[in-house]
Amino acid sequence: MRSEIVSIGTEILMGQITDTNASWIAQQLPALGIDLYWVSAVGDNLGRLREVLARGLERSDLVICTGGLGPTEDDLTREAIAAVLGEDIVQDPQLESDLRAHFARRGNPMPERNLKQATRTASTTALPNPRGTAPGWWSERDGHVIVAMPGVPHEMRYMWETQVVPRLSSRLGDVIIHSRLLKVIGLGESAAEERIRHLLHTDNPTVGTYAKEDGIHLRLTAKAASLEEAKSMVEDLENRIRAELGIHVYGVDDERLEGIVGQLLMARQLTLATMESCTGGLVANVITNEPGSSAYFKGGLVTYSNQAKIDFGVPAAVIEQHGAVSCETALEMATAARQRMSASVGLSVTGVAGPSELEGKPPGTVHLGIDVEGQRRAISASYPVVRVQMKRLTMLAALDLLRRTLLGAEKM
Amino acid sequence: MRSEIVSIGTEILMGQITDTNASWIAQQLPALGIDLYWVSAVGDNLGRLREVLARGLERSDLVICTGGLGPTEDDLTREAIAAVLGEDIVQDPQLESDLRAHFARRGNPMPERNLKQATRTASTTALPNPRGTAPGWWSERDGHVIVAMPGVPHEMRYMWETQVVPRLSSRLGDVIIHSRLLKVIGLGESAAEERIRHLLHTDNPTVGTYAKEDGIHLRLTAKAASLEEAKSMVEDLENRIRAELGIHVYGVDDERLEGIVGQLLMARQLTLATMESCTGGLVANVITNEPGSSAYFKGGLVTYSNQAKIDFGVPAAVIEQHGAVSCETALEMATAARQRMSASVGLSVTGVAGPSELEGKPPGTVHLGIDVEGQRRAISASYPVVRVQMKRLTMLAALDLLRRTLLGAEKM
Repeated sequence: MRSEIVSIGTEILMGQITDTNASWIAQQLPALGIDLYWVSAVGDNLGRLREVLARGLERSDLVICTGGLGPTEDDLTREAIAAVLGEDIVQDPQLESDLRAHFARRGNPMPERNLKQATRTASTTALPNPRGTAPGWWSERDGHVIVAMPGVPHEMRYMWETQVVPRLSSRLGDVIIHSRLLKVIGLGESAAEERIRHLLHTDNPTVGTYAKEDGIHLRLTAKAASLEEAKSMVEDLENRIRAELGIHVYGVDDERLEGIVGQLLMARQLTLATMESCTGGLVANVITNEPGSSAYFKGGLVTYSNQAKIDFGVPAAVIEQHGAVSCETALEMATAARQRMSASVGLSVTGVAGPSELEGKPPGTVHLGIDVEGQRRAISASYPVVRVQMKRLTMLAALDLLRRTLLGAEKM
Repeated sequence: MRSEIVSIGTEILMGQITDTNASWIAQQLPALGIDLYWVSAVGDNLGRLREVLARGLERSDLVICTGGLGPTEDDLTREAIAAVLGEDIVQDPQLESDLRAHFARRGNPMPERNLKQATRTASTTALPNPRGTAPGWWSERDGHVIVAMPGVPHEMRYMWETQVVPRLSSRLGDVIIHSRLLKVIGLGESAAEERIRHLLHTDNPTVGTYAKEDGIHLRLTAKAASLEEAKSMVEDLENRIRAELGIHVYGVDDERLEGIVGQLLMARQLTLATMESCTGGLVANVITNEPGSSAYFKGGLVTYSNQAKIDFGVPAAVIEQHGAVSCETALEMATAARQRMSASVGLSVTGVAGPSELEGKPPGTVHLGIDVEGQRRAISASYPVVRVQMKRLTMLAALDLLRRTLLGAEKM
């Protein structure tokens, strides 16, 4: 199936927003076996929009539109689709009553202009949008499909997953598609691919690798005649990947590293405190991005100077002998954090964020320490990249050290 | 002048990268008086690329391409442009010697495949790329222009600014364009626009407003016959905007809030310490994103529990009487941070990050405190949004409180 994506909205052409919908949809298509040949953006202009959609219906089996379904005069996606189909736009009483109910639940009357969103053409199927006011449109002509979804990303993604994919699956034959994301840390993209090279070049199931802010993501996708079969294919593949990558797989689907360590701490009824120097509070910040983290996170210390480290319990003699950027100081920082905050686990980071070197150590040098009820371990690493990037990689390494330690994978 | 943008590369269609080049270029065009009508992305496919470029040359005065200028067989932008122009591709000895010199400076011989990058058609002007190996192409047919730039963002931006804009300016008439960014904090986008409404709807100079992560950005742009005149027009407009927005304008162009407060602290030879609860270390993290911040940042405390606040110097009686989320506790936290870290300024945040309420106060409630050598002030705010967003807005408010205080704009 040959497809194209059309992103609609003058704000995209003005550079006021970056179109993330197109790349998100583009990522979903390979797993469905749908080829993507064109991506385009057009403004809120009826003539140009009609032209783009008409060409799309000619050359593509599936035209995926986002945006232009709002209630204002600028929102012209419905008008353009109707024109291309050669059909009139009519009010749909069911859509209207759904929309009035949507506003009523929020305690507001529906502005009359929103009536525009309760319309469709005779041959169009409206796609419910429980997360917003704009229903989607699914329209067909000569076996070619135009699907229009709202531009708000979370509304669009929900509609795609719950409404569009099931409709597409039936067109792709009697095939069920199942997909699962594995999240990997502590390996670069090429190192991860190297280890699973023999699993990468299969048609079904497939593995896609993506380098992301929180590690490497592997998307496993299988097509089969039944959901059970597709799930079992993905599960087999996942087991083979886990056999190769082991502890480096830290989570699946929506799981986040800070959530994983939170769960591990709570399962063992442990509490956490941090002492950071070069990451400057980033480790504590990410840990507290997790809702409910106050249950296990006692607090953190950002000790940006030697004096602060000493004031909060690092022996001056250790800094004097080994330097502030050393495994020995990292260990003492972990212990000091744990004791000073009355926590069961102390996690520490010390390093050189740059731009200058420190104690003769180059920017990017880091030492991480952990103290779990008196059992201690330190590890060292080097991230010779720009400051903010270096902080991020160090934070990930610290959370991963905590995760591996709680899983018993680090020798103490 | 009617323009379109074409982003080239299969990795965009696979969703492996999000195309930020298109939105960056889109942002530059209004200031040049160039209308943007279409944005499209195509894969590394010669047939489809030719089709898109041929249509572009028909309907647009200017077709701006990025990507597909690398040395591999997949890089087909040159081939497609040559085909559309109906010209042959020939080696350019000057480009070749530039390219060999580029590799020689890095101590490497040039791989033979890079010869592909030292080519052009007879009518094409090559655009130098001092930041990479791919020169750009500037080609014309019947008064319409195709310009091709590399896909690597920093190479593309540099080529745009140094090569493309000057060539465009001459086509737009004898006009110099000058532009300046004003960064605004403490006002929402509509509130900011409301105050400068009477300045928004002019043709030259123009003001564009953009809501960004670090506040509202206003882009001021003037066109004139000379740079002096354009600069003076922007300066006049800037003065009128500053008269309306006053202290809310915190910086210009590349300046960042954490850099501004760093400069203010250093100018007054002050040092800083923080005590944060609901922001969980984000304030310290952003402050330490600034290179050289160790000169003035003593450190931070993340006191996620009442006990931690008390351990680090907040009187238990104040928490008992007013609650941990209160102006009184914020003031004591600022003082405790200042004293405990031997800093001259203490900055504090306490609030409810959610998801649950705390002390009967709803998520989003925040109190900020500041103590400058014993002079204290607290302010309150409410950001009833999701956790990570709430943390970000609170961090910005805290840095802004620090900035305004150091500028003498807050009554202590």
